[in-house]
Amino acid sequence: MILLCGALASAALLDAPRAQQTGSQTTSNVADSLGLMPIPARMQFRDGRLAVTPRFSLAIAGHRDPLLERGVARFVAHLSLLTGMQIASTAESSTKATLLVEANASGNATPQLGEDESYTLDVDPSGARLAAPNSLGILHGLQTFLQLVEVTPDGFSLPAVHIEDRPRFPWRGLMIDVSRHFIPVEDIKRNLDGMEAVKLNVFHWHLSDDQGFRIESKTYPKLHELGSDGLYYTQEDVHDVIEYARERGIRVVPEFDIPGHSTSWFVGYPELSSTSGTHAIERRWGVFDPAMDPTREETYKFLEKFLAEMTRLFPDAYFHIGGDEVNGKQWESSPTIQAFMKAHGLMTSLELQQYFNARVEKIVEKNHKIMIGWDEILAPGLPENTVIQSWRGQDSLAAAARLGYRGILSNGYYLDLMWPAAQHYSVDPLGAGAANLSPDQAARILGGEACLWTEYVTHENVDSRIWPRTAAIAERLWSPQWVQDVPSMYERLAREDWRLQIFGLEHRSKLTLRLETLAGPGGVDSLRVLADAVEPVKGYSREHAAAAAGIEPTSADPLNRLVDIVPPESETARKFGEEVDALIAGGFADTAGESRVRAQMELWKANDTHLEPVLAASFLLKELSPLSADLAELGKTGLEALDAIDRGEQPQPEQRQQWTAQIAEAEKPQADLLLMVAPPIQKLVNASGSAHPRNEAARKQ
Amino acid sequence: MILLCGALASAALLDAPRAQQTGSQTTSNVADSLGLMPIPARMQFRDGRLAVTPRFSLAIAGHRDPLLERGVARFVAHLSLLTGMQIASTAESSTKATLLVEANASGNATPQLGEDESYTLDVDPSGARLAAPNSLGILHGLQTFLQLVEVTPDGFSLPAVHIEDRPRFPWRGLMIDVSRHFIPVEDIKRNLDGMEAVKLNVFHWHLSDDQGFRIESKTYPKLHELGSDGLYYTQEDVHDVIEYARERGIRVVPEFDIPGHSTSWFVGYPELSSTSGTHAIERRWGVFDPAMDPTREETYKFLEKFLAEMTRLFPDAYFHIGGDEVNGKQWESSPTIQAFMKAHGLMTSLELQQYFNARVEKIVEKNHKIMIGWDEILAPGLPENTVIQSWRGQDSLAAAARLGYRGILSNGYYLDLMWPAAQHYSVDPLGAGAANLSPDQAARILGGEACLWTEYVTHENVDSRIWPRTAAIAERLWSPQWVQDVPSMYERLAREDWRLQIFGLEHRSKLTLRLETLAGPGGVDSLRVLADAVEPVKGYSREHAAAAAGIEPTSADPLNRLVDIVPPESETARKFGEEVDALIAGGFADTAGESRVRAQMELWKANDTHLEPVLAASFLLKELSPLSADLAELGKTGLEALDAIDRGEQPQPEQRQQWTAQIAEAEKPQADLLLMVAPPIQKLVNASGSAHPRNEAARKQ
Repeated sequence: MILLCGALASAALLDAPRAQQTGSQTTSNVADSLGLMPIPARMQFRDGRLAVTPRFSLAIAGHRDPLLERGVARFVAHLSLLTGMQIASTAESSTKATLLVEANASGNATPQLGEDESYTLDVDPSGARLAAPNSLGILHGLQTFLQLVEVTPDGFSLPAVHIEDRPRFPWRGLMIDVSRHFIPVEDIKRNLDGMEAVKLNVFHWHLSDDQGFRIESKTYPKLHELGSDGLYYTQEDVHDVIEYARERGIRVVPEFDIPGHSTSWFVGYPELSSTSGTHAIERRWGVFDPAMDPTREETYKFLEKFLAEMTRLFPDAYFHIGGDEVNGKQWESSPTIQAFMKAHGLMTSLELQQYFNARVEKIVEKNHKIMIGWDEILAPGLPENTVIQSWRGQDSLAAAARLGYRGILSNGYYLDLMWPAAQHYSVDPLGAGAANLSPDQAARILGGEACLWTEYVTHENVDSRIWPRTAAIAERLWSPQWVQDVPSMYERLAREDWRLQIFGLEHRSKLTLRLETLAGPGGVDSLRVLADAVEPVKGYSREHAAAAAGIEPTSADPLNRLVDIVPPESETARKFGEEVDALIAGGFADTAGESRVRAQMELWKANDTHLEPVLAASFLLKELSPLSADLAELGKTGLEALDAIDRGEQPQPEQRQQWTAQIAEAEKPQADLLLMVAPPIQKLVNASGSAHPRNEAARKQ
Repeated sequence: MILLCGALASAALLDAPRAQQTGSQTTSNVADSLGLMPIPARMQFRDGRLAVTPRFSLAIAGHRDPLLERGVARFVAHLSLLTGMQIASTAESSTKATLLVEANASGNATPQLGEDESYTLDVDPSGARLAAPNSLGILHGLQTFLQLVEVTPDGFSLPAVHIEDRPRFPWRGLMIDVSRHFIPVEDIKRNLDGMEAVKLNVFHWHLSDDQGFRIESKTYPKLHELGSDGLYYTQEDVHDVIEYARERGIRVVPEFDIPGHSTSWFVGYPELSSTSGTHAIERRWGVFDPAMDPTREETYKFLEKFLAEMTRLFPDAYFHIGGDEVNGKQWESSPTIQAFMKAHGLMTSLELQQYFNARVEKIVEKNHKIMIGWDEILAPGLPENTVIQSWRGQDSLAAAARLGYRGILSNGYYLDLMWPAAQHYSVDPLGAGAANLSPDQAARILGGEACLWTEYVTHENVDSRIWPRTAAIAERLWSPQWVQDVPSMYERLAREDWRLQIFGLEHRSKLTLRLETLAGPGGVDSLRVLADAVEPVKGYSREHAAAAAGIEPTSADPLNRLVDIVPPESETARKFGEEVDALIAGGFADTAGESRVRAQMELWKANDTHLEPVLAASFLLKELSPLSADLAELGKTGLEALDAIDRGEQPQPEQRQQWTAQIAEAEKPQADLLLMVAPPIQKLVNASGSAHPRNEAARKQ
């Protein structure tokens, strides 16, 4: 009765080719308004809606296990949060339930790579049915159900729909570096909640690096005791996080980065390093010389015991050994290491590292784990089941796939580069250099991982560096490849953004508080106007600017400047840019649109007067003074250009050159921030110089 | 060296009479800008400032105990949150420390009524010293230190100051009713954090009422099993809350409301009630008939065992037995109870209740506790150490004090009445009917308690019903009586509001999320304009409106309307009112002020057009449509009145009458909300009718 399979036999489902060719517009619009993210593999909307009231009930039919039951309890709590109604759903008889949940079997006790994650969700006005081969699919389907709930003039409800969903890629991860700055357990858990919401299924835990060894080792306690400043996870914490992830269908893959990126190990165990003498925890950022000594048997004995402990701690079948960015300097300057290399016919540091990797791989294998490492580990002789994580890109990934290795993409998904969501969204694990793989080779591309390196990230801003952008990456990794529409993505991302906050993510609430910290309660409005118009500089510009200024940033630096607080992507700037584009494309005929653009520029123009005293009152804000002045100038310039357009006058070329020079000046980074509203203002200036568009539009009417 | 006592011997300290007579203006302005809340008993500012940098250090001299050490650890974490700097303070030598903390002795393991809570804080440019007789005083002083930290053009710092502080009243409480709606442990804890920040020291836990019995009883498990819908605190939870409170210097006083307000007890134990038959958990609000049977010995046997269990669970010396609002109907209609009354010479239900109270008091006393109850328990024969909590007011409290009983005030501090902070602030436990007590009698007034009854409160909005207003009540109970300046209170409350959010309170972040739930991401801006201009109806108007509409509100009603979300007090309306007052008082000469008032009214006037489609799209928002239209009209009227004033024209009386009628219409409650911006608009209309004030002002110049 609830299941609509009969009807579906004759109905067309929305899937890749069909969506692009027939009726995709309508369906796509419905989907946009719903904010499904990631977009399901196949869906078909039907007539009518299913109401969600305080009397909502859920019944579990078929298989039942703790994973499913706790997932259902979370779902009911989340449904209460979304609707503001206390829904005290108790399991009712299957025929009466608003939502019937039916898993055919249990999933694995701990989620595993390649498990069936599919589900089918049918919603009709009399009820909904969520079916899946196992409880993992049910967890995903429950998130989809939550995303379908909308407020309407008649109450909360979902549209009638048939969804058949499964992920495009089996490995959809988020890596968090907890070494450069420690991220406490509660913050990790909150982000696991976010991952569940967007169907990510791998938490990659970058646990050690030069700047910190962040996990308790009972075998070698000086690792965490001396290598962490006291900021580490106990093994109880680790069990807690693994269990929390497991309940949300998320695997936990630990990474211990060796033989480079390992200074923090040497504080307690200097004998592991390739030099004599003592080591201190690294406080700076970058690639450093210290590396393990791959020529001493004691190194492998240490790793034998250490990996035996750690592989027991983490249940996942995969174990990440890092292996990136060894600069080889210590090896090159060590006579004993050079002698070893000569004796073993190892010509380069890379070959020595490959020797090391091969030895480590044996240890990993002995502990019944499959090794994963960054691009650099790829070398002849590497066992075929090794997984390559690529920070280099699809070319590197494709090369590995052609050699038979499986891989995951992270190039293009580095969250710390402060890219806009659309830029990450455009990166496809099977795009660029991986586009022409054979089907067998392409099947070796398991997916990808968003990566957050934490030079400029603490528990204070970690959420804002991850969310909402990671939801766009999650969609890339789950949804069919044809799901590419950027405006639709942003439309749906805004809804997911809100849901993530409802579920407890703090990326927005922290921003407001931090602006108040900087400006005081009285100054926050004008500071927000500026904050909304800027973004942090992109890529590694912050490092370059510091180097140019002769400053060496360290882990001791407070991260309490505006650049540390504002989101990586300015929604205000993006929307303003869209409005300006639409205005120009429409020949300035949209008077409502023009008045919105004008009001925005008036706000910027007037803001500096209010903001200057606020900036002057705080040592943390002083650096923003030129930015605020530039924003006012941009507003003024934009208004003048628009006035000229409105009057049907073409400004003198000198005038436009002057405006352009001023805009170019405003586009330069200041205080590690970019005024993202400058490019659309330049477009207005350009438009003022071409034939008077409004007049032309008027003439056409 | 750090201690400034030498200098102080000859310097005047800021205390009551001096502050009001000499130099209070300057000092008071300094204090306002700092946001100290509550204002300390005595303080004196000095020259210079103490910098707070990431190298901030703290040393403990003198006595050291876990309470102190954990308080210090929380302080360092909070200082990090306030400054956005990771402060990893380790105890250093006393001479080098930025802050030296010195307690003479340990406090009690569990805080007790009347303990010395005083402290002395000296800040000078080279360091600070916090001294107290015990760790309780240190906890209070650390909060003061946090409140002194400011951002300046040169960094974070505190002003040099000498503070001698102690509370005016020893009992400064917050009562939360967890029966009408259950409030989970994590929400209770968050509010204990808030209490610590403003130096409140009693958490009064209203654990049972008609609508729910919220604590696990091992002696009588059907109490929580059948009386709570599964929503109750385990005894482990209770230990956890008591410990959490203890660490923050907060006593926990449990209340079990008997013999009335006890329907939830009778679900599991119907034999306790005064009628035969079964009972169900009460779902409605109000005063109900069910009451314990005070005539059966079994009732007292039950209470003997139950109170033995509960008095063991709660370490505080005081135990609250409620005792309010027994309507006596069941007693009057029971022949056996009437016979008992006759036999014992009890003439009225009140006398029967007094008999019951006396019996219960013996049980409480036997368990080494002191009884506290609401006004109704006051009767001849009540032991002299009983404490009366007054919901009736200062007259009732004073009457008790004259009879020798101690008391605390709650009338005037009911948070659920949705009063503005200033209204609570004006209520003094020693004001009104208690103003003329003799010193001995006045000393019996122990303080007061803010009370939150939770008919319309869940864990979703609990923070916004308590904060920030409770900080104003906390100041009333801590600070000297002469601290009365309302504008200063609001100035400092804004800063405390922000600090409370930094420390984790959710009263503002939840508002934003809930507005998005109601309006969707696209509609939130225009909904916020309306939300900012309204307040929930006051007192019991919501009940009266429901009754007039023939609706009976119950605990099953979702609390997801705008009235459930907006703060009790509109900051926008208050500030707008202040601006209008200043404008009128200044004869409309302040053009900047006028343009702010004008911009605000333009916003309101224009908002309805944007908001209407948003309201139409949601069943939860439809009811706001008339309010939104009225707000637009108010904006329009205010602008027209101001235009007339600017033109120097006096509008026709008919015009002003029409405006006034329209404003009166807009002042009527709609959707249980009040448009708080209406009265200032009426003032503008009135001003437009008097002699042209701007012209007069201009003439005077």
